[in-house]
Amino acid sequence: MEGKEEDVRLGANKFNERQPIGTAAQSQDDGKDYTEPPPAPIFEPGELTSWSFYRAGIAEFVATFLFLYITVLTVMGVVKEPTKCTTVGIQGIAWAFGGMIFALVYCTAGISGGHINPAVTFGLFLARKLSLTRAIYYMVMQCLGAICGAGVVKGFMGNTRYGALGGGANSVAHGYTKGSGLGAEIVGTFVLVYTVFSATDAKRSARDSHVPILAPLPIGFAVFLVHLATIPITGTGINPARSLGAAIIFNKDKGWDDHWIFWVGPFIGAALAALYHVVVIRAIPFKSK
Amino acid sequence: MEGKEEDVRLGANKFNERQPIGTAAQSQDDGKDYTEPPPAPIFEPGELTSWSFYRAGIAEFVATFLFLYITVLTVMGVVKEPTKCTTVGIQGIAWAFGGMIFALVYCTAGISGGHINPAVTFGLFLARKLSLTRAIYYMVMQCLGAICGAGVVKGFMGNTRYGALGGGANSVAHGYTKGSGLGAEIVGTFVLVYTVFSATDAKRSARDSHVPILAPLPIGFAVFLVHLATIPITGTGINPARSLGAAIIFNKDKGWDDHWIFWVGPFIGAALAALYHVVVIRAIPFKSK
Amino acid sequence: MEGKEEDVRLGANKFNERQPIGTAAQSQDDGKDYTEPPPAPIFEPGELTSWSFYRAGIAEFVATFLFLYITVLTVMGVVKEPTKCTTVGIQGIAWAFGGMIFALVYCTAGISGGHINPAVTFGLFLARKLSLTRAIYYMVMQCLGAICGAGVVKGFMGNTRYGALGGGANSVAHGYTKGSGLGAEIVGTFVLVYTVFSATDAKRSARDSHVPILAPLPIGFAVFLVHLATIPITGTGINPARSLGAAIIFNKDKGWDDHWIFWVGPFIGAALAALYHVVVIRAIPFKSK
Amino acid sequence: MEGKEEDVRLGANKFNERQPIGTAAQSQDDGKDYTEPPPAPIFEPGELTSWSFYRAGIAEFVATFLFLYITVLTVMGVVKEPTKCTTVGIQGIAWAFGGMIFALVYCTAGISGGHINPAVTFGLFLARKLSLTRAIYYMVMQCLGAICGAGVVKGFMGNTRYGALGGGANSVAHGYTKGSGLGAEIVGTFVLVYTVFSATDAKRSARDSHVPILAPLPIGFAVFLVHLATIPITGTGINPARSLGAAIIFNKDKGWDDHWIFWVGPFIGAALAALYHVVVIRAIPFKSK
Repeated sequence: MEGKEEDVRLGANKFNERQPIGTAAQSQDDGKDYTEPPPAPIFEPGELTSWSFYRAGIAEFVATFLFLYITVLTVMGVVKEPTKCTTVGIQGIAWAFGGMIFALVYCTAGISGGHINPAVTFGLFLARKLSLTRAIYYMVMQCLGAICGAGVVKGFMGNTRYGALGGGANSVAHGYTKGSGLGAEIVGTFVLVYTVFSATDAKRSARDSHVPILAPLPIGFAVFLVHLATIPITGTGINPARSLGAAIIFNKDKGWDDHWIFWVGPFIGAALAALYHVVVIRAIPFKSK
Repeated sequence: MEGKEEDVRLGANKFNERQPIGTAAQSQDDGKDYTEPPPAPIFEPGELTSWSFYRAGIAEFVATFLFLYITVLTVMGVVKEPTKCTTVGIQGIAWAFGGMIFALVYCTAGISGGHINPAVTFGLFLARKLSLTRAIYYMVMQCLGAICGAGVVKGFMGNTRYGALGGGANSVAHGYTKGSGLGAEIVGTFVLVYTVFSATDAKRSARDSHVPILAPLPIGFAVFLVHLATIPITGTGINPARSLGAAIIFNKDKGWDDHWIFWVGPFIGAALAALYHVVVIRAIPFKSK
Repeated sequence: MEGKEEDVRLGANKFNERQPIGTAAQSQDDGKDYTEPPPAPIFEPGELTSWSFYRAGIAEFVATFLFLYITVLTVMGVVKEPTKCTTVGIQGIAWAFGGMIFALVYCTAGISGGHINPAVTFGLFLARKLSLTRAIYYMVMQCLGAICGAGVVKGFMGNTRYGALGGGANSVAHGYTKGSGLGAEIVGTFVLVYTVFSATDAKRSARDSHVPILAPLPIGFAVFLVHLATIPITGTGINPARSLGAAIIFNKDKGWDDHWIFWVGPFIGAALAALYHVVVIRAIPFKSK
Repeated sequence: MEGKEEDVRLGANKFNERQPIGTAAQSQDDGKDYTEPPPAPIFEPGELTSWSFYRAGIAEFVATFLFLYITVLTVMGVVKEPTKCTTVGIQGIAWAFGGMIFALVYCTAGISGGHINPAVTFGLFLARKLSLTRAIYYMVMQCLGAICGAGVVKGFMGNTRYGALGGGANSVAHGYTKGSGLGAEIVGTFVLVYTVFSATDAKRSARDSHVPILAPLPIGFAVFLVHLATIPITGTGINPARSLGAAIIFNKDKGWDDHWIFWVGPFIGAALAALYHVVVIRAIPFKSK
């Protein structure tokens, strides 16, 4: 029942609202119980003694390593050819980023939650889904994995060629302002983190059985779609670890000048998505209980 | 049992028809109960006092905003390059439209039903799946979201460049008659709304467990496929909010001349799909009960 | 239990074989019951009095109509441009064919079984999944739908242009023998019908819960993949209705000369797939019971 | 409960760790029972008397045959054209490889486990998921299937043309060292076999219901993604049967010189993935029980 548990009443009378219509219209087990998990504590010392905590960090490291390895290698393969027709093309780059997130979220969801992105970790932390300890630990492991992944690509390509080809580093393209670049990162990360929240919402998981089953797929598609739209503007970051790893291994001024945009933008976008989810979709601040 | 509940009998004898064969042939829980939800009232004053009604409108606004933002930005990125080989290409544009519908239907299905398109809202209204109040409210929010989404893209690209590149607005391409353009919009929207009805049919949801689980994916693919076919004809509307948003922000004669096609076509197509679903597939008018 | 019901014993001792390993390795409800549906009768007069029989034919007509409409329109859009870079490309054509089969199988699976292809109907008929009456009725409706779909595309493009662009008709490309063309149609249809059988196998549906849920998706992909491989050879038929519809509307010698290949090839391929499924995979002839 | 069965305790106290956050955060049936299947014996004579053992080998043969047929034919179609714009492109080749693995794993998962790749068989053997007898039998059938598949393509194309076009054989591209080629094969196969292990893990299958349902899809995507990244380096093997089949049918020095890389690389990658899964993810060596 849509109006059962969480709706903020505008009036006094209990109105038993009809189902939202459309793709969810027909699910009849709507009133299925679910329990909102309690907010994660800021510090949770106990998790530091558990193997699964360290394992989760290793899984984030390996996943981000593989993410940078495959994606930066794909970028190198495309940019090194004078005519893009003999490569997988810019669209192929977008598939590499989105597809890897799909596969890796699928593989690591049960081990670490499948973040592979400090902005996702940040957004979920703001919504109190994980402790600060774990959030920082994940971000460090993600950045280390990203650096190693980009480093292996540099090893394969050779120093000179890697540098000449731009190393897959993000920057604001000629013809766009820094403001546009920042905006593109904010909205792009919003799309991604909004999808992550939608895919993992406890209430919807209980109600719509198709939501969690497909979770890694729309998350991967969100990344793919943002790349389709913003590769011409910033090369698309929406993942500070990805931007940092490529920038450190590339290590030229061009890679560092705009680097703040790829931290500030994603973190603002993730915060807005967390805010939208918590305040508008779940209306948590307005709940009496 | 296929023939159990809804079949219109041609003869007197109760014939227990065999299962449809093919992909659904093996489901053995065919006789599972389902209840056809009663038709929505034209006006449902009670929903106006519920937060979830307003939340649904906000979700439609945000989803249509993100839809136009990503898709028009992708269009801009493709058309601004002299050779399409250095872009995600026309196929990439089709992926942007279809992929966004997939991701956004997935994200908003449980909140608003995931329409993101006045033609879908119109078709579901004709089938009495939502009230008139809600239908109008959704359409207004969708149009506002579309205008804002296209507006942000214009802000990123700059006025001059946005105008020169066509602004993603729909029009009938040179070499096609207005009749062909209208026809393309009608059949295209039929494909989309027919898929929406198939994905949300109560009887089939109860019978074929694979139908609702994948619902957002075939809906997104339907949009992708119509774009593959009709981008060369009209640029593909099949969504009046998308056409309106781009037209208002582009705001040149070229964008307005054919604009009626992108309202009349989708609404006719949606009505035909609703008719096909209700009369042929569900045979509701012929049911005794 | 793999060896429980259907295995043909090579020796006398009942050997309780281990599970196949790999993606199915972990399913533990392996011994779940299933019942093989009895073979369909050749003639089933009763179904002629049921609305759902006629409705199924209408659904096949509409689905094949939409299939030809979208796919031939996509082909026209690609071939009319001198440089393919400004179109969705040959890959886009493959997506149109595969994607439409995915969406349409999803939409019509519960109504008609979702064949949309006389070769699929023929293969399922050979495996006794539907009556001869229904098989012939479906094939007629599929061919009529295909003719109408291609006809609408001709109406949009205009006679001259449609003819000049080849009308999406199949023929063996220059540089390939008719034998190669026939072989390509046989193996291609085998891939498709083999996937259809795998997706709808009663035993596997009962055992592997992931098999039926995804059914329309691998079927659509099979069509996509065969197009990737054999568009350069025959344009890819693997669907006699699709080939007939395009040939009739195109109606030039070029479209008719090789036309027999697109009936003989798919029917041989479908028969081989039915044989492989029934004899090797299900070992039905060797079962004592 | 994450910490329930398998966690290696770092300290003495039983700490009931919170759920991993992110996409798996909301599953509430976490403590669901599962049983780790016992390791497969090295030799299992009983399986030699079962039809399903031989059937599994036939299924591997047919699947690898179809895999090589479709993929090498796609490669031929792309390389024979002077401009790639008139073909499905390099990205289309990547789709052919990944898509076929998706469809074939889906089709054969319940029959043979859906390996279609000696490296996958090797990795699963190292993790003791199948007997040595079966592993060798599968590998032989996979190689035979691959040779036949490539042979049919040669028959279609004609000897001269097939040879001139490179026959789809793998080799290290000009501009890359043999070490880079070997490294690309190792990491690429790691991505694939890591995904296979993630998709078939008993513990995760019990806990996360979305994991097994999508299993063939991320496995296919993993193959697609590795091709996007490493086609420019080695043409992408990550499957010794695929490399062997193409090399034998092509049978020129160019195809044989680097051939060892496409056996050593994938086997090392598969071994590393098995090690990572068993030691880090499942921590089996550290379990007391």
